Amino acid sequence: MKDIGIGIVGGGYMGKAHSVAFAAVASVFDTTLRPRLVRICASSDESAERYRATYGFETATSDWRELVEDPNVEAVVIASPQKTHRAIAEAAFALGKPVLCEKPLGISVEESQAMVDAAEKAGVTNMVGFNYVRTPATQFARKLIEDGRIGKVAYFRGEMTEDFFADPEIGGWRGQGAANGCMGDLSPHMINCARALMGPITSLCAIAETVHDTRAGEKVTNDDQAQMMCRFENGVQGHMFFSRVATGRKMGYAYEVHGTHGHIRFDQEDQNALWLYTTEGPEVERGFRKILTGPEHPDYLPFCQGPGHGTGYQDQIIIEAKDFLTAIATKTDIWPTFREGLEVNRVVAAVLDSSAKQAWVNVADY
Amino acid sequence: MKDIGIGIVGGGYMGKAHSVAFAAVASVFDTTLRPRLVRICASSDESAERYRATYGFETATSDWRELVEDPNVEAVVIASPQKTHRAIAEAAFALGKPVLCEKPLGISVEESQAMVDAAEKAGVTNMVGFNYVRTPATQFARKLIEDGRIGKVAYFRGEMTEDFFADPEIGGWRGQGAANGCMGDLSPHMINCARALMGPITSLCAIAETVHDTRAGEKVTNDDQAQMMCRFENGVQGHMFFSRVATGRKMGYAYEVHGTHGHIRFDQEDQNALWLYTTEGPEVERGFRKILTGPEHPDYLPFCQGPGHGTGYQDQIIIEAKDFLTAIATKTDIWPTFREGLEVNRVVAAVLDSSAKQAWVNVADY
Amino acid sequence: MKDIGIGIVGGGYMGKAHSVAFAAVASVFDTTLRPRLVRICASSDESAERYRATYGFETATSDWRELVEDPNVEAVVIASPQKTHRAIAEAAFALGKPVLCEKPLGISVEESQAMVDAAEKAGVTNMVGFNYVRTPATQFARKLIEDGRIGKVAYFRGEMTEDFFADPEIGGWRGQGAANGCMGDLSPHMINCARALMGPITSLCAIAETVHDTRAGEKVTNDDQAQMMCRFENGVQGHMFFSRVATGRKMGYAYEVHGTHGHIRFDQEDQNALWLYTTEGPEVERGFRKILTGPEHPDYLPFCQGPGHGTGYQDQIIIEAKDFLTAIATKTDIWPTFREGLEVNRVVAAVLDSSAKQAWVNVADY
Amino acid sequence: MKDIGIGIVGGGYMGKAHSVAFAAVASVFDTTLRPRLVRICASSDESAERYRATYGFETATSDWRELVEDPNVEAVVIASPQKTHRAIAEAAFALGKPVLCEKPLGISVEESQAMVDAAEKAGVTNMVGFNYVRTPATQFARKLIEDGRIGKVAYFRGEMTEDFFADPEIGGWRGQGAANGCMGDLSPHMINCARALMGPITSLCAIAETVHDTRAGEKVTNDDQAQMMCRFENGVQGHMFFSRVATGRKMGYAYEVHGTHGHIRFDQEDQNALWLYTTEGPEVERGFRKILTGPEHPDYLPFCQGPGHGTGYQDQIIIEAKDFLTAIATKTDIWPTFREGLEVNRVVAAVLDSSAKQAWVNVADY
Ligand SMILES: NC(=O)C1=CN([C@@H]2O[C@H](COP(=O)(O)OP(=O)(O)OC[C@H]3O[C@@H](n4cnc5c(N)ncnc54)[C@H](O)[C@@H]3O)[C@@H](O)[C@H]2O)C=CC1
Ligand SMILES: NC(=O)C1=CN([C@@H]2O[C@H](COP(=O)(O)OP(=O)(O)OC[C@H]3O[C@@H](n4cnc5c(N)ncnc54)[C@H](O)[C@@H]3O)[C@@H](O)[C@H]2O)C=CC1
Ligand SMILES: NC(=O)C1=CN([C@@H]2O[C@H](COP(=O)(O)OP(=O)(O)OC[C@H]3O[C@@H](n4cnc5c(N)ncnc54)[C@H](O)[C@@H]3O)[C@@H](O)[C@H]2O)C=CC1
Ligand SMILES: NC(=O)C1=CN([C@@H]2O[C@H](COP(=O)(O)OP(=O)(O)OC[C@H]3O[C@@H](n4cnc5c(N)ncnc54)[C@H](O)[C@@H]3O)[C@@H](O)[C@H]2O)C=CC1
Repeated sequence: MKDIGIGIVGGGYMGKAHSVAFAAVASVFDTTLRPRLVRICASSDESAERYRATYGFETATSDWRELVEDPNVEAVVIASPQKTHRAIAEAAFALGKPVLCEKPLGISVEESQAMVDAAEKAGVTNMVGFNYVRTPATQFARKLIEDGRIGKVAYFRGEMTEDFFADPEIGGWRGQGAANGCMGDLSPHMINCARALMGPITSLCAIAETVHDTRAGEKVTNDDQAQMMCRFENGVQGHMFFSRVATGRKMGYAYEVHGTHGHIRFDQEDQNALWLYTTEGPEVERGFRKILTGPEHPDYLPFCQGPGHGTGYQDQIIIEAKDFLTAIATKTDIWPTFREGLEVNRVVAAVLDSSAKQAWVNVADY
Repeated sequence: MKDIGIGIVGGGYMGKAHSVAFAAVASVFDTTLRPRLVRICASSDESAERYRATYGFETATSDWRELVEDPNVEAVVIASPQKTHRAIAEAAFALGKPVLCEKPLGISVEESQAMVDAAEKAGVTNMVGFNYVRTPATQFARKLIEDGRIGKVAYFRGEMTEDFFADPEIGGWRGQGAANGCMGDLSPHMINCARALMGPITSLCAIAETVHDTRAGEKVTNDDQAQMMCRFENGVQGHMFFSRVATGRKMGYAYEVHGTHGHIRFDQEDQNALWLYTTEGPEVERGFRKILTGPEHPDYLPFCQGPGHGTGYQDQIIIEAKDFLTAIATKTDIWPTFREGLEVNRVVAAVLDSSAKQAWVNVADY
Repeated sequence: MKDIGIGIVGGGYMGKAHSVAFAAVASVFDTTLRPRLVRICASSDESAERYRATYGFETATSDWRELVEDPNVEAVVIASPQKTHRAIAEAAFALGKPVLCEKPLGISVEESQAMVDAAEKAGVTNMVGFNYVRTPATQFARKLIEDGRIGKVAYFRGEMTEDFFADPEIGGWRGQGAANGCMGDLSPHMINCARALMGPITSLCAIAETVHDTRAGEKVTNDDQAQMMCRFENGVQGHMFFSRVATGRKMGYAYEVHGTHGHIRFDQEDQNALWLYTTEGPEVERGFRKILTGPEHPDYLPFCQGPGHGTGYQDQIIIEAKDFLTAIATKTDIWPTFREGLEVNRVVAAVLDSSAKQAWVNVADY
Repeated sequence: MKDIGIGIVGGGYMGKAHSVAFAAVASVFDTTLRPRLVRICASSDESAERYRATYGFETATSDWRELVEDPNVEAVVIASPQKTHRAIAEAAFALGKPVLCEKPLGISVEESQAMVDAAEKAGVTNMVGFNYVRTPATQFARKLIEDGRIGKVAYFRGEMTEDFFADPEIGGWRGQGAANGCMGDLSPHMINCARALMGPITSLCAIAETVHDTRAGEKVTNDDQAQMMCRFENGVQGHMFFSRVATGRKMGYAYEVHGTHGHIRFDQEDQNALWLYTTEGPEVERGFRKILTGPEHPDYLPFCQGPGHGTGYQDQIIIEAKDFLTAIATKTDIWPTFREGLEVNRVVAAVLDSSAKQAWVNVADY
């Protein structure tokens, strides 16, 4: 097995998740490349050093350029705030280094486009951190739909709902700037999921709104919740709802897909179960069945030989790390690449504009 | 207790349900008026006589005018097809007789308006058969929202989904005519529910579409599924979805209401449970709780002293019969009256037009 | 259709349920016999008259002998306290009148035996009011097991749990006398269910105990909860648990049946769903499916043409009334007859004795 | 942070899980000791080398003595078959090295006793691999019970059910020998859980049996399923069921605890939810609430800042590794120690003997 030096920018929520993932992934998946935790970067020398010690990196820095340029860093993971993504990615691509970038790709369609261009020009591995689409359950749902297991699809409904901002007393930076709003920050996971399961979105009509105009005395400048009706390229109509004020919902990444011969339902709050209804067998015995993920489902067995034993949030990031290493090792693109991040951002832009115009819009116009 | 002579037009699905309800209601609720099953009407003499014998009516007829004019018939229940509702109701009102009319009220806004006018001019009891809004669970949900138990509402999502038409091999009259489409026939229950829980709908943007263009070789002329985004008069945004092709869904009368302090969820397929989340108590113990209906909830105790023992579909019709008798006895309007049926039809009309125009529309314009 | 005069002893919880049931049953099921509510009996003239008026009976009495001997009363329903069952039933049988007797049959094995003897000697219709076994879901479960749909059964677990006595501040007559204890009063429904699904119980080992020794200051003389391991005649091992102090459980009539090819689960708190797992189809798609009852399931269609619309507690009593009328009309025994009530009581006796002896006992010895 | 050299005996199912856990634990929990994966042992040189390469150990061996005696190995994890546990543990203790031993501790009470004696004599850290008791949900359940949150406990029901042996065509070594039977192999996790939540078991009465006498043509010599009624030292009665033939159950580590003021339910198949009912608040709003685990619950936050994002099977092993390292670093016993493994084995022995005798037995007699 060949080693590969990993550098991670950011040591917070996702920086930690990626650090753990790259520490564990080779044991879990028996990857051909074995990650070496070379360098971690955070906004101060002090925090960077703290992360280095905790996560077991060799070196630390508060300058991401130093990390990117470190010859021992052979692949870069970007887990710093959204506004930093572009510059870091472009620098890495300029040096021909593969990049796994956290969602959302850039802070605008323009930025995302530039990042895609840089990636494609460099011709190196690029991937966006849409981790939820990688659970065994959702991978399996995708396969069922592709295989026509539920017939011709008639309707898709998705949501991404949490309640971390339900209390209007909670304020801070999250209430400021489109990129930190519900659409900018929360919606991309579900838009990515919808695209994974249904394909591209052609047109949409949306409402995005601020539920709590002020928070802790300060004016809020971005959206708390949004919904859209949409039409997919395959002709199917869909609906999506996004909220950071959905009291009671903690990880409401949920969808349902209606087909002419079946129906699939999923809710990330019970991530080890996929619900499937099919029109097979006698009517008297039909019902939604709760399929527990197990060794038969995508990317489950490496975690556990027993069905129903379950994977969790961290395991999604490990699967992601495996895909990233595989893409590097095999020099193939593994979905979702930067281009997917760009397309998701385009939908975000279309939603905000549709809401302002109160009209249907074409996604291609953004 | 005073007797009241009941005449029912229609002996099919709902004619039977109302017959059973009026046979049982006085025992269940100890109503001040005791129904006497005087006369039943169906489209042929033969079927009318069969229904009479089975349901225990005194007399039968195939002419609804005869029923309406029968001096022993003191209140009329209309459980015949939609297109017959108006004439029967107007005839009954002309004689000053109370009417309980099945949903949808009329086949158009105009018809419904005429029926409301007739009812209000006559000044007699008039009610529409929106039975689902009468379950103990949904009555309780309504009360919780009114009492501010979940705070200020931020979002409403409703659906009315079934799958009786999912198979394109199933054809027949249901595939013909707007009144028999998903919007005309299926949506009114959920629109009524949304109005009960949230109040009037001001504007909306919708898609209505036919999923199976032909059925059993015949061209389909009405809609299989529809969705709408809407804005309620109280400022809240909502979404509703209606489908008769939602494979796997049998009685998908379901809703969720997000509030600043709580969240309510309901699904008629488990009609004896209401899910409630509140932000009370320590975070560590919060969760959606499954409240089983019981003697403490509206209109449950008369059916059973034990909580969790459950009510069913037929019991909703019994509650409806009780409300109708109470309205007559107390000479008060009991919601939902014909006016509610009219307002629901107005929303149906707005949905179909919005879908055609692909634009937001104001409900008041219909 | 021929009329049949019904007399009901008791106008309380179950007296009301049976009154409603006999008012509605002919309309629901199109029975060949149409019940006429002839006479109701309660412990005082005043209450009897009140029940008469509310439930729509022709006459009232506070003397059950008068009711039994009334020539217009052609069938007797016993819905009075347990200790009154035997004398009423024997009087009715002596006059050749059919009897539907509430559970438990008698207050002891001896009494129940005497009642069975009287019934069988008279050769008239006799039935015990085990209503839960009559839901569409449980009837269907029984059929699935009989048809071998889950293979050879390996394990049965049942429970009958409620919490109406969880609070030790609640006292009263229920805390006195074996017949009112958890075994005497609550367990029979589940023992009957176990026998319906699995057949006779051969031996058992049990614990019955009082959780709250005093209630509202008074000494409690009967059991609050009990459990038993058992062996069925078919060789399968089982377990049952009974409790009136199971905080949070409202209608915990629940069971699971493990078979070599499948698994069935049911909980009366969601009485319109039966959960079925089978080993058919590819492993990757297997799961417990939630079958919603509908027109395809036993005794559902008469209540509603739509699947998933649901039946409730009162509907079980209507099904029971239908079975009783059918047994009378066809002069056949319809299960569960008095003999079933006796066998259930035998198990209750065995449980109490096993608990006292702390040893396995043979049910046949009681 | 100080390093600590880890040696793992066994590279199969659990050997892998522990390897991943020790690779990740320091990053996840910021432990004071940072594991170095020094040596792995498997039954052949070839497999040991393969595991070494995949899991990232420094050296490999097929002789566990070599591993135990390796001066760089400072702590030993035993993840080899049951019959090997004793010798390895004793050798490690003799050298004063801490041991984390997979369940079940020894193959008999005698062996387990010897292992406890060796551990206590050596005075070094010793721990048994009961991982399920370490989920955030079950740790929280334990705390709720200890804090009296559900009042005085009245009943405990537990089960450990899987279906990997439901099909009688599946044979092999698992069908041979008490240690590989359902009691020997599967039950210990739930017995440990029951003890964690309820305390010691005093007496019990059990049935253990073989459902499929032959498998793939070979006679089966151990049990497929077993149940026991028991009495805990605190006076509460309980029931447990264990099965490897529970068709449809994949990870049926499930329990319910009834208290005078509340009720707790858990099922490992949905491991991120704990169900709690309390008698607080108005009756009309009471219900079982589904609490999703989150940062407020024990050992969750290190995995993820978001509630409801979920932990999985592998994360339990990481928590276990953290506890083991903490016990070593702080030189304190962290439950469950070897003594717990011994007590669990005592219960297993009592169950098998009770079943043979068909009588209640005292656990202390084993
Ligand atoms: N995939 C998922 O489930 C999630 C993805 N994210 C995404 O991950 C990214 C990071 O978010 P969090 O981890 O929540 O943020 P965080 O605030 O927890 O951590 C951000 C880290 O970036 C570092 N950082 C900030 N500016 C920097 C700079 N100029 N140079 C170097 N380091 C810098 C900080 O020191 C910190 O270590 C964002 O793009 C976010 O949208 C966040 C949460 C969940
Ligand atoms: N509230 C609810 O849950 C439901 C309401 N409905 C509504 O109930 C009404 C009746 O529907 P169903 O009972 O399903 O229909 P159905 O086809 O089962 O029965 C219709 C009955 O009306 C009689 N009828 C037809 N034309 C007549 C005429 N000109 N004069 C007298 N009788 C006539 C027929 O003989 C038949 O007895 C409709 O308005 C429908 O939308 C239907 C199903 C469920
Ligand atoms: N199947 C089921 O789900 C249930 C069955 N039951 C059973 O139903 C029976 C009655 O119980 P409940 O209705 O709960 O009791 P209840 O106390 O509500 O009503 C008892 C009725 O019997 C009358 N009564 C008492 N003594 C009488 C006498 N000597 N002569 C004539 N009438 C007399 C009372 O006036 C009262 O109307 C019992 O056997 C009980 O075990 C009770 C509840 C549920
Ligand atoms: N906590 C849990 O959830 C689970 C615990 N276990 C327990 O873990 C232990 C191991 O079971 P599995 O991992 O399922 O077994 P396995 O068969 O997958 O792996 C056993 C490993 O031990 C090695 N081995 C066997 N004999 C050896 C010897 N004499 N010297 C050195 N290495 C030897 C084998 O080469 C193999 O690598 C058992 O005690 C079992 O009860 C097993 C499964 C789940």
